[in-house]
Amino acid sequence: MMDNVFLHDVPLAQAWDRLMSALAAAGLSGPLPGEWIALEQALGRVTAEPIWARLSSPHYHASAMDGYALRADSTRGANDRSPVDLRVGDQAVYVDTGDPLPGWADAVVPIEDAEPIGDGRRATLQSIRLRAAVVPWSHIRPMGEDIVASELVLPAGHVLRPVDLGALAGSGHATVQVRRRPRVAILPTGSELVAPGSAAIAGQIIEFNSLVLGAQVHDWGGEPRRLAIVPDDLEQIKTAVRRAADDGADLILINAGSSAGSEDFSASVVASMGEVLVHGVAVRPGHPVILGMIAVDGRTLPAIGVPGYPVSAALTGEIFVQPLVERWLGRTPSVPTEIEAVITRKVHSSIGDEEYLRVTVGRVGPRLIAAPLARGAGILTSLVRADGIVRIPAGAQGLEAGQLVRVQLYRRPDEVERTIVALGSHDLTLDLMAQFLAGRGRRLASANVGSLGGLIALRRGEAHLAGSHLLDPETGEYNLRYIREYLPETPVVVIGLVGREQGLIVAAGNPHRLTGLADLAAAEVTFVNRQRGAGTRVLLDYHLEKAGIDAAAIRGYEHEEYTHLAVAASVSSGRAACGLGIRAAAEALSLGFVPLFSERYDLVIPREHYDGAFLRPLLDLLIDEEFRHSVAALPGYSLEPMGRIIAA
Amino acid sequence: MMDNVFLHDVPLAQAWDRLMSALAAAGLSGPLPGEWIALEQALGRVTAEPIWARLSSPHYHASAMDGYALRADSTRGANDRSPVDLRVGDQAVYVDTGDPLPGWADAVVPIEDAEPIGDGRRATLQSIRLRAAVVPWSHIRPMGEDIVASELVLPAGHVLRPVDLGALAGSGHATVQVRRRPRVAILPTGSELVAPGSAAIAGQIIEFNSLVLGAQVHDWGGEPRRLAIVPDDLEQIKTAVRRAADDGADLILINAGSSAGSEDFSASVVASMGEVLVHGVAVRPGHPVILGMIAVDGRTLPAIGVPGYPVSAALTGEIFVQPLVERWLGRTPSVPTEIEAVITRKVHSSIGDEEYLRVTVGRVGPRLIAAPLARGAGILTSLVRADGIVRIPAGAQGLEAGQLVRVQLYRRPDEVERTIVALGSHDLTLDLMAQFLAGRGRRLASANVGSLGGLIALRRGEAHLAGSHLLDPETGEYNLRYIREYLPETPVVVIGLVGREQGLIVAAGNPHRLTGLADLAAAEVTFVNRQRGAGTRVLLDYHLEKAGIDAAAIRGYEHEEYTHLAVAASVSSGRAACGLGIRAAAEALSLGFVPLFSERYDLVIPREHYDGAFLRPLLDLLIDEEFRHSVAALPGYSLEPMGRIIAA
Repeated sequence: MMDNVFLHDVPLAQAWDRLMSALAAAGLSGPLPGEWIALEQALGRVTAEPIWARLSSPHYHASAMDGYALRADSTRGANDRSPVDLRVGDQAVYVDTGDPLPGWADAVVPIEDAEPIGDGRRATLQSIRLRAAVVPWSHIRPMGEDIVASELVLPAGHVLRPVDLGALAGSGHATVQVRRRPRVAILPTGSELVAPGSAAIAGQIIEFNSLVLGAQVHDWGGEPRRLAIVPDDLEQIKTAVRRAADDGADLILINAGSSAGSEDFSASVVASMGEVLVHGVAVRPGHPVILGMIAVDGRTLPAIGVPGYPVSAALTGEIFVQPLVERWLGRTPSVPTEIEAVITRKVHSSIGDEEYLRVTVGRVGPRLIAAPLARGAGILTSLVRADGIVRIPAGAQGLEAGQLVRVQLYRRPDEVERTIVALGSHDLTLDLMAQFLAGRGRRLASANVGSLGGLIALRRGEAHLAGSHLLDPETGEYNLRYIREYLPETPVVVIGLVGREQGLIVAAGNPHRLTGLADLAAAEVTFVNRQRGAGTRVLLDYHLEKAGIDAAAIRGYEHEEYTHLAVAASVSSGRAACGLGIRAAAEALSLGFVPLFSERYDLVIPREHYDGAFLRPLLDLLIDEEFRHSVAALPGYSLEPMGRIIAA
Repeated sequence: MMDNVFLHDVPLAQAWDRLMSALAAAGLSGPLPGEWIALEQALGRVTAEPIWARLSSPHYHASAMDGYALRADSTRGANDRSPVDLRVGDQAVYVDTGDPLPGWADAVVPIEDAEPIGDGRRATLQSIRLRAAVVPWSHIRPMGEDIVASELVLPAGHVLRPVDLGALAGSGHATVQVRRRPRVAILPTGSELVAPGSAAIAGQIIEFNSLVLGAQVHDWGGEPRRLAIVPDDLEQIKTAVRRAADDGADLILINAGSSAGSEDFSASVVASMGEVLVHGVAVRPGHPVILGMIAVDGRTLPAIGVPGYPVSAALTGEIFVQPLVERWLGRTPSVPTEIEAVITRKVHSSIGDEEYLRVTVGRVGPRLIAAPLARGAGILTSLVRADGIVRIPAGAQGLEAGQLVRVQLYRRPDEVERTIVALGSHDLTLDLMAQFLAGRGRRLASANVGSLGGLIALRRGEAHLAGSHLLDPETGEYNLRYIREYLPETPVVVIGLVGREQGLIVAAGNPHRLTGLADLAAAEVTFVNRQRGAGTRVLLDYHLEKAGIDAAAIRGYEHEEYTHLAVAASVSSGRAACGLGIRAAAEALSLGFVPLFSERYDLVIPREHYDGAFLRPLLDLLIDEEFRHSVAALPGYSLEPMGRIIAA
């Protein structure tokens, strides 16, 4: 681009230091001022100062039981043979639990230990008889037993929990001084953006980064303010930023336009209203970050240009916004829980950047296993499915398969311990399994590495099971030959899961009236193929050969797409009349579908896991009526193979 | 009591089963109905059903870069020596990041890889020159790269996090069906109750259980409804319960009155409106729980009588209300993180009850150490300070010192790892240290086991340091003789912390004009003493002997109290004219104080911890100006010994 501004990525620590220095220079690096609020509103807020008890708790000597207050020395020598009688009124006085102890008394005897002498009603009771001596201060809650006035109840910087509120109230407080919530304005910019739920047409992008950033800010204790979408227009963006500052924002997030393209205005906005401190941070995803300080009506405040890709936006929140919010709240910075795990595959990483690699984590046998998820900055589901992050430092070229890595967990370690790891080919049934297992004490974490990748993972001891649908074109049998080849040393059980319909994805209503592979050779029909090596391509070639159809006669046979959905999209756009794929892809785009074959999808499970108790809840699903019913309801799925032992 | 109803404690599991059976019979044991809400409101809510993608994300093939859309095959063979020129308009079309790919194109070349041919402005650009071939589908985000329409986005029973909201919006949702929040009405009952902040007089109890229970319910995902305090009156309580049910409560908590005393109406209320399922559960604290079902206007709902002691109330919340709320939300039950730790001292426990023992936890050397906190049901600060709970099962008589126990953590394990454990005599300075350490990467957990208890804990390797102020009456020196005696094998460093004023606590204005110990023998002066063995008693006896004053001549010398504050309370009530204690106790009750002695309070630190890096932040405090300033501001404290090495 001609009007291109180049980014100069700086290391993360340096970027943070520049922001901190600028904040310190503006007097903005410390905690925000405190504000007094009622205890009832204070859950989750952060104390602005140490809180000392105003009142002791209890604030008087209180009876700890329903019983009689008395002087211990008046019961001296009492026993079964020579009981002591005390006059009710002056020697013993009835007290309920919590009643103040009379000034002359120094003990309470519980009601069940005091024999009434009289007609049995308390009002006319004259004496009580005691058959044991009472120890001074027994059954009394002495003043200050819980909290002594002037003691420290809670330190500053403490996040208030339910019991803390009780301790504050009990020590004489009805209000508490907490840090004001940092106000974070979130400004979505982009002429292509539409609100969630809008009927989206090609080129329109659903704006949800502000939803994610706003929820993050809320979780971290800040007060998010989501602003209306502003189109790509320098002046309009500046006006919106100015207004947010006028409304009292402590921080403004401008999303997106933080890169250096022709419609990326964030850097110009910040530069024209103040100073760009950093444009580009050496982290992936998320490097086109802008850190700056702006001034509006004499007030200085920070502004962050947040990249537009959703993973980049969410990680920018975690990397820059969270520590800033926590600093302003005066609370201890959050430190993620870390564990060590074995990474399942080689990961190349740019040597100049720190990479935030999303992984799923589970324990397989003795080892914790981290399986990398999709790395694209646009793949928000990689964060949804992530159990944690592996930070690959700048200067490293990546990770070797089998290397020990530190994982910053998004979950608690005990959740990791009850995670079943499934690597292999993905199938919708696994999603349903995850759904059913959630209520049965297990989590299912699956990562799509393809059928072959799953078998290799089993060989390496990196998964509890692998989903696989590898057709052997020689025999027409599934999986077994590949298992013999790739898992010669690993005893496994192969268990059928589902039959999946494969067929022709066609335009709605099937205008060409296609019925099978033989029709593909017709002159007016253009086909769209899957790439070499894909299971569906193997399936096509197998059936073409079986039916004696010449691939060269099929128009478009050489046109390859990489996913079921890409095939469907080609059909949808009219570029092709048909392609081979699964019914779900056709239904996703409201296309027609001509079922042709059923392919079998198996679970391959190492014998050691199959025999153990850990996978039992998953295996039980295969005979669970409700689960089978849910699978049967999926379009194009057959239960026929489910639970069948194919090989053991 | 005559009208006493006895509790029949049943085991916890059985109590829970009875409640579940009754709920199941009433059709109330499953999740609550779903409700549709906007994504913006959905953070932290629980999905009521699996959510499938309506739209793919991206929902069209999108350019992943600012650049030119083209057909990959039109760049075939391009290299430095024979570049390929493409006409802008039909062979190459400019696209911004996120723009839809034209139907005929199958790749994007980034702008920096396309040499402009023309006058340099994009509007008049005629051709671009490429010096490398472009791979098909490069720099394109294919439709469905993130989410494919019809895929499972989130399972049912999932607690929505920020990234989940983004995934839902991106997959075509603007609203989401979540479980309705369980409405939990909390009814405080008791004629003695007053609201927080009220000027409390003896016999009035500040009502804060509803604050704690309400905040717990909120944290667990329910909707708390705190009702106004109702006095101990059967009909008034019934009216309030009926109104709460009419207002749609799913569960009513009646607090307190759940025991069997004369003013305990909860059981009668539940019995008269329905059925008491359980009255008394074999757990401590918290056994006088009532579980019941009531019917109001034909609607059946559960009611729980929550005990009045604050620890009992909070634990009843955790034991019964939390799992019920989670069940109604349809989410996976919370499982506390558990660790194994060594218990520091013998704990006796009633064999019939399951006990919930609050402990602080830290790592000392190779071992995790759990130190029991105060066990009284009235001591809410034991929950405030607790790092976790040790459940001592029914049937066990308690725990042996040094026994390995399982701790259910209230904190994350990594917080435990950065905890400095201080056992010994407590001092206000430790609270200040905790405050300062929070910002320096350490937590300070201290439990008051007395000076001697602290030294014994060091011998057993159960603490990083002990606070001690043990006076040797023979020499007038502090701590050293006791260290020689109790820690003969453990090399330690003794480091001075503070000098503390001890003196006479007297009525405000010092009406008897007391100036020293010699005045105690005067006829009109009554004294109140501390118990034998207390450091203050040792100090008194030492100085009496030194001054040659006969203890027998002091009126009230035999009257013993157990805490500084109890001494102050005796003076405050007029029962005694004076007692020996610390200035803070006098100030807590607005009494007068006559300073007499300064006693030294030391830190005793095993050499191995003193030399290590872990305690460094704490030791650094001793020379930190801000910290010293804060200690100096405490009444009756001297910095003189701070940081002085007494012995090493």
